[in-house]
Amino acid sequence: MKLLHTADWHIGRRLHGFDLTAEQQNAYAQIEQIAQEEQVDGMIIAGDLYDRRLPAETSVAMVDSMLQQLNLTDQIPIYAISGNHDSATRLATGTPWFKATHLYLHTDLSQAFQPVELSDTQLFLCPYFEPFDAQQYFSDDSLQHLDQAFERVVVEMKQHFDPTKKHVLVAHFFAAGSSTTDSETNLTVGGLAAVPTDLLTDFDYVALGHLHGKEALQSPTIRYSGSPVKFSLSEANQEKGVWIVDTAYDPVRLTFKPITPIHDVQQVTSSFAELMNPDDNDTVDHEDYVGITLTDKQPIPNVMARLRDVFPRIVTLGRTDGFETQVRYHGESSKQIRQKSPMDLLDDFYEKVAKESLSPQQEKWAKAALKVAREEGNQA
Amino acid sequence: MKLLHTADWHIGRRLHGFDLTAEQQNAYAQIEQIAQEEQVDGMIIAGDLYDRRLPAETSVAMVDSMLQQLNLTDQIPIYAISGNHDSATRLATGTPWFKATHLYLHTDLSQAFQPVELSDTQLFLCPYFEPFDAQQYFSDDSLQHLDQAFERVVVEMKQHFDPTKKHVLVAHFFAAGSSTTDSETNLTVGGLAAVPTDLLTDFDYVALGHLHGKEALQSPTIRYSGSPVKFSLSEANQEKGVWIVDTAYDPVRLTFKPITPIHDVQQVTSSFAELMNPDDNDTVDHEDYVGITLTDKQPIPNVMARLRDVFPRIVTLGRTDGFETQVRYHGESSKQIRQKSPMDLLDDFYEKVAKESLSPQQEKWAKAALKVAREEGNQA
Repeated sequence: MKLLHTADWHIGRRLHGFDLTAEQQNAYAQIEQIAQEEQVDGMIIAGDLYDRRLPAETSVAMVDSMLQQLNLTDQIPIYAISGNHDSATRLATGTPWFKATHLYLHTDLSQAFQPVELSDTQLFLCPYFEPFDAQQYFSDDSLQHLDQAFERVVVEMKQHFDPTKKHVLVAHFFAAGSSTTDSETNLTVGGLAAVPTDLLTDFDYVALGHLHGKEALQSPTIRYSGSPVKFSLSEANQEKGVWIVDTAYDPVRLTFKPITPIHDVQQVTSSFAELMNPDDNDTVDHEDYVGITLTDKQPIPNVMARLRDVFPRIVTLGRTDGFETQVRYHGESSKQIRQKSPMDLLDDFYEKVAKESLSPQQEKWAKAALKVAREEGNQA
Repeated sequence: MKLLHTADWHIGRRLHGFDLTAEQQNAYAQIEQIAQEEQVDGMIIAGDLYDRRLPAETSVAMVDSMLQQLNLTDQIPIYAISGNHDSATRLATGTPWFKATHLYLHTDLSQAFQPVELSDTQLFLCPYFEPFDAQQYFSDDSLQHLDQAFERVVVEMKQHFDPTKKHVLVAHFFAAGSSTTDSETNLTVGGLAAVPTDLLTDFDYVALGHLHGKEALQSPTIRYSGSPVKFSLSEANQEKGVWIVDTAYDPVRLTFKPITPIHDVQQVTSSFAELMNPDDNDTVDHEDYVGITLTDKQPIPNVMARLRDVFPRIVTLGRTDGFETQVRYHGESSKQIRQKSPMDLLDDFYEKVAKESLSPQQEKWAKAALKVAREEGNQA
């Protein structure tokens, strides 16, 4: 069987306030196209279809339309699970009907053990669960940690193994040895929630969701697909895409199919002057979502607005070295400062910050403002 | 065809803070039983499955489970629409798959015109819509009011009429001539949203949702089923249940099948003494949800807590005549009052309100409290 492995669509997610709907639609369209070009026998979606347990109506309409297009129009079988960002209860709506067209969407641990039987492969769809769910399912309070619970889950799955077939597990968790990025929610701490990868060696392939970079695990048989869209600056250098998994080979054959964003996410470190006056060698796409780190050491007036004229999608703005010039009044005593007029103080301050004097127009505005302030002060 | 007509389930609704889950499950179980005993060919649910556009997970799980039971387990065809309390978008999830098992759930005006074809009947499922939706669908800005829009909708439906069949309309709105109760949200004002019943005469039966009492319309062919549960005190005297509609007869034959609540809702008008000391002729079920109107004229200390000992489900408490004794100090000048000690003032007040003196224990508590207050006053 040839399966497409994707995960972590996070429909409804924003990037530092920017709407990612167009990016997510674009990535989805490429996933659909890859599935058709590769003539896959099915698509695995390893959890986190939604970004929130309580998605907005627009997100609901988007996921509904994507699943309908893939499954009903394109007639691609879907093998999906709920992730930690999804509401298992909300995602479960309609699922008993979906099986008729080979859309499997498992949202409850109890559904993990009966595999979906394909011609040469058994697919175990294990939704995101917490130790408490395993305690309930197995009636065993000793399953306090996820690794214990998952070990028990695998034992139970293996009782359903057909030795003549390949065994594929679809799951959503943090596998030990994975490297994390900062756009996954830290729902669990330290080693507590990690599942050791050696628990997963009985499967011919483990299609994981949760971490957003495909490099998080390098095992030939255990893989994160990563998210199809970059959801944070820490994902700037990740290559996004999907895995094509061919279970006819032993070990399974993996091919990565990249997805091209409309606007990429990148980290830029440069001086303000270079950013504002790009030369011919400029490699930065100004339409990208950029995290800018300035190498300048002095304060720059109105820096964000001026940069936004050139880079409309700034997601963060920082400095490599902080400021060289701290804004202090060296050499003057507090008594001397108190004797200065408000206008002189403003003049001094502006020159320290902006490295230039107030223009005649600015001075006029400042005087008018100070006059109003003085009058209101007298009234009070 | 024999159809069961219900509406306005409002799953998730509360009655003055009381959870109605058990009542709603109980009513649902009776609806299921009636459908089975009557061997109906299908069930009409005329909108407002949910009480809110954004239902809680528990409500989602409840509606999911009810529809699965009726349609997948009992194999009863379902003909449903969204109402003004539902989110059409959220309710639409999964609907393209549902048709395979004859669960029709229309949530968009565009779905209203293609009837569901039964052997002897055409079913037009028209979800709740607003004039704006009709303007969009017909590309006609002149459809400013619901009556105009609905007239146009009916014209369009009639183009799909098969003259050899009966024609049943399922809709959710306020039909002119209906009497309202106070538990429907007043989304629309006055005549604006009312649809004249003469627009509905081309149908052999119109199964309406929105108003919660089956008596709201008395037409032999246009009916509200009412809600299966009493959702407000104004519904206390309504008989709840469902209609069985047999389209084999001309005019259609209607039979009302009542639903029995676990605890009824009723309005009780009585004196405090009679309520607290029921005699053998007492007809009030103390377990009911009761709106109590007291005939007493004097203040009654701690009245709600004392009544709740006898009636655990009080939803409102009022008075027929208000209070006879206004709490005022007649005959004393404000100077005289100011000369009284706090303890004397409290004594006077309590006697006015409670028609009895403070008990020795109450006096002790009051003195202790006044001492603390005095000490804190001295410190301040």
